[in-house]
Amino acid sequence: MCNTIRSILKENTNLINKQIVVNGWVKHIRSNKFQKFVIINDGSTIRNLQIIVTNEKRKINRGTFLKVKGQIVLSKGNKQNIELLAKDIRSYGLFKDKYFQKTILQPKTHSFKKLRQQSYLRFRTNFFSSIMRVRHNVSYLIHKYFHKSGFYNIQTPIITNYDTEGHSNLFKVTTLNLKQLKQNDFKSDFFGENAFLTVSGQLHGESAALGLGKIYTFCPSFRAENSNTPRHLAEFWMVEPEVAFFNLKNNMYLAEHFIKYIIKKIIKLSYEDLLFLDKDNQIFNNLHLILKKEFKRITYSKAIKILIKTGDQIKWGEDLKSEHEKFLVENYFHSPIIIFDYPIDLKPFYMRINKDKKTVSAMDIIFPQVGEIIGGSQREERPKILLSQMKYFKLKTKDIEWYINTRKFGTVPHSGFGLGFDRLIQFITNMKNIREVIPFPRSKKKIYT
Amino acid sequence: MCNTIRSILKENTNLINKQIVVNGWVKHIRSNKFQKFVIINDGSTIRNLQIIVTNEKRKINRGTFLKVKGQIVLSKGNKQNIELLAKDIRSYGLFKDKYFQKTILQPKTHSFKKLRQQSYLRFRTNFFSSIMRVRHNVSYLIHKYFHKSGFYNIQTPIITNYDTEGHSNLFKVTTLNLKQLKQNDFKSDFFGENAFLTVSGQLHGESAALGLGKIYTFCPSFRAENSNTPRHLAEFWMVEPEVAFFNLKNNMYLAEHFIKYIIKKIIKLSYEDLLFLDKDNQIFNNLHLILKKEFKRITYSKAIKILIKTGDQIKWGEDLKSEHEKFLVENYFHSPIIIFDYPIDLKPFYMRINKDKKTVSAMDIIFPQVGEIIGGSQREERPKILLSQMKYFKLKTKDIEWYINTRKFGTVPHSGFGLGFDRLIQFITNMKNIREVIPFPRSKKKIYT
Repeated sequence: MCNTIRSILKENTNLINKQIVVNGWVKHIRSNKFQKFVIINDGSTIRNLQIIVTNEKRKINRGTFLKVKGQIVLSKGNKQNIELLAKDIRSYGLFKDKYFQKTILQPKTHSFKKLRQQSYLRFRTNFFSSIMRVRHNVSYLIHKYFHKSGFYNIQTPIITNYDTEGHSNLFKVTTLNLKQLKQNDFKSDFFGENAFLTVSGQLHGESAALGLGKIYTFCPSFRAENSNTPRHLAEFWMVEPEVAFFNLKNNMYLAEHFIKYIIKKIIKLSYEDLLFLDKDNQIFNNLHLILKKEFKRITYSKAIKILIKTGDQIKWGEDLKSEHEKFLVENYFHSPIIIFDYPIDLKPFYMRINKDKKTVSAMDIIFPQVGEIIGGSQREERPKILLSQMKYFKLKTKDIEWYINTRKFGTVPHSGFGLGFDRLIQFITNMKNIREVIPFPRSKKKIYT
Repeated sequence: MCNTIRSILKENTNLINKQIVVNGWVKHIRSNKFQKFVIINDGSTIRNLQIIVTNEKRKINRGTFLKVKGQIVLSKGNKQNIELLAKDIRSYGLFKDKYFQKTILQPKTHSFKKLRQQSYLRFRTNFFSSIMRVRHNVSYLIHKYFHKSGFYNIQTPIITNYDTEGHSNLFKVTTLNLKQLKQNDFKSDFFGENAFLTVSGQLHGESAALGLGKIYTFCPSFRAENSNTPRHLAEFWMVEPEVAFFNLKNNMYLAEHFIKYIIKKIIKLSYEDLLFLDKDNQIFNNLHLILKKEFKRITYSKAIKILIKTGDQIKWGEDLKSEHEKFLVENYFHSPIIIFDYPIDLKPFYMRINKDKKTVSAMDIIFPQVGEIIGGSQREERPKILLSQMKYFKLKTKDIEWYINTRKFGTVPHSGFGLGFDRLIQFITNMKNIREVIPFPRSKKKIYT
């Protein structure tokens, strides 16, 4: 097999005079009377390899794929240490399309929107391949963190038969012929009952944690929301750890420890790509701010008091708006914060009711720039209270009787949280639009490829 | 935070006389005049911890959750080295349900079907928690293998707008109100066009590999097949690597190297759980057979010749039945085999046509017991031939023009394969029914929780 450009540049001057084979797409060509300088990239790294070509008559153009045999030599240029003196070149897929040559492959900045419309070609741009490598590394670090901490990865189901949080924004799944639908067809549908795409793996994850102790999910989730904002996707990936025996305090500790581990490690693991993406020195600033101090923990009630003191009209019981969160993080505490103990009415039914009977053991971690990055809670483990909460929120208990049963048999305090994976990548890469950090974004009226 | 039983048993006699806190569910209780022996498990391992309880008046029963403070002492029994002398016990969730006590929690073997019907409680059984820990470890090893080999993990889309392989067994995704559907509603559906659940991430994965070089996906896939067999699920997880510059030979090498890495490592990483699951010494036999020799590589044509020689009526061009594969693997070669170069008509449109113009560069890896475990191919990278293949198979080119475009711009030979993750777990744990190795199985007329 061949060397990747990443491995070649890592070996660097150790390879001087060695014969190697390398593959890659042409990024750039310049030439003088005697030779051509062909810059190639193979996707393994943001960095390129320069090929010195002499005696080559065939046409080579930008975007063409080359397989090059040659010898590594010390570079005469000052941009790189080593380059490859070509001895034999094979080319595939000569580029004939002028439109594409003139748009995506031009070494200039394209509008993100234009790139998105050709999502299957974005992978060949410096910008998007960088983001994808960062995304991979974050994903790998998440698995590594939980594995080393004794968590078991559970694939929670994508197709479910109930509506977790009383959402109306669910995608239905069906095999019925919609063009000729008759009302007595429903029993012949594949599952013979209602089927939806999951909005969260949490409830199933809880049942797993009540046997395995510590689990996490890393699964796609879906919302049929009509929100065409730069922060929402109809299909996105969630990371949801759940731990038996954990209270809210343990949960906050885990969430902070986890997110700091990811940020600390990604700075090192994706250094070159982040450096490339960091046009205005904002990325490393953002990342270091997360690591600098302990996240400030404040109750919701404390947050309201602070906001009222600064002259805001907000009242206890009202939801914090993103401006409020932004003010607390960026202007008041100057660090990420964890807000906990929210009023019952602001949070879902499954959160544990506190002794004050007004608040639940919820927690949200608020970051600068992106706002809420993690939301979690201690879960209501007492079956009677869980049931009365479901009634209070007017939920049908019949559909998720199994969930109530998990509280009847060997119930135990437990907690967990959810992290929007794509939103974390958006924060790390400092992208304005979340559609730039997922390979094939889906949103209202848009299936990009 | 507390110690897990896994970490306590790992430290073992190093902990003698140390004070610790441990959490777990009661698996078993016996008592004499002076003390109770309470066996607890916390899901972190198949092994249990014995608690010695004196002076405890409160009722403790099987399934109840305990938090125990105490001192590690040398065990007087011969089943374990250490045990915990309890000083303080807190219990949660006293078990009142007699049905559950008498069924799932009884320390006897339950019918798998019965367990499946209470999928949310299966995690608390030795059998299922073992399988879940093995499943996690295999998943982790897959990520580790590809990460170390320079592959990037790509989340390919779950919701797609086309039908990859001309399947009719697709799940539709919609937000229309099916109870009051009017035929002019279709434009108001969420995506404003046909939307399906993906059957494979391959085509999207190819476009990623044509920019990033080496990628893999690890995503759910869906088939609305009416096949209620022990080998089929409507929702399952696929691992699909794809590599630019790879031909079929490279692809076979990668697949064999990959699967042997997983098998070799899981024997060590999940040793205790596999030992527990291996009732008839079949599991380790199966696993070692995979590692023993190089997979035998034979062409489809050679396979047909062998079968005809043994008196079978099969003709060239006909599909191999599972009995044929079984015969070749178990009776003829006595090892896993890779069959390659299949007739065009037996394989999907995207596989690369060989020089003989009769066969395509496809490969299937056949294992003992489970049959096909991996299917892959070199992809047709020549745009004209790809297009004529699509016409030959009567596929609508309009829907996946983007896929043809990947061949117009910087195309290059590339290859990949798909591994059914759940089927691999089924092979490793030697389970008869695939529903026993996935947390929440989905199949025709069945959404288990």
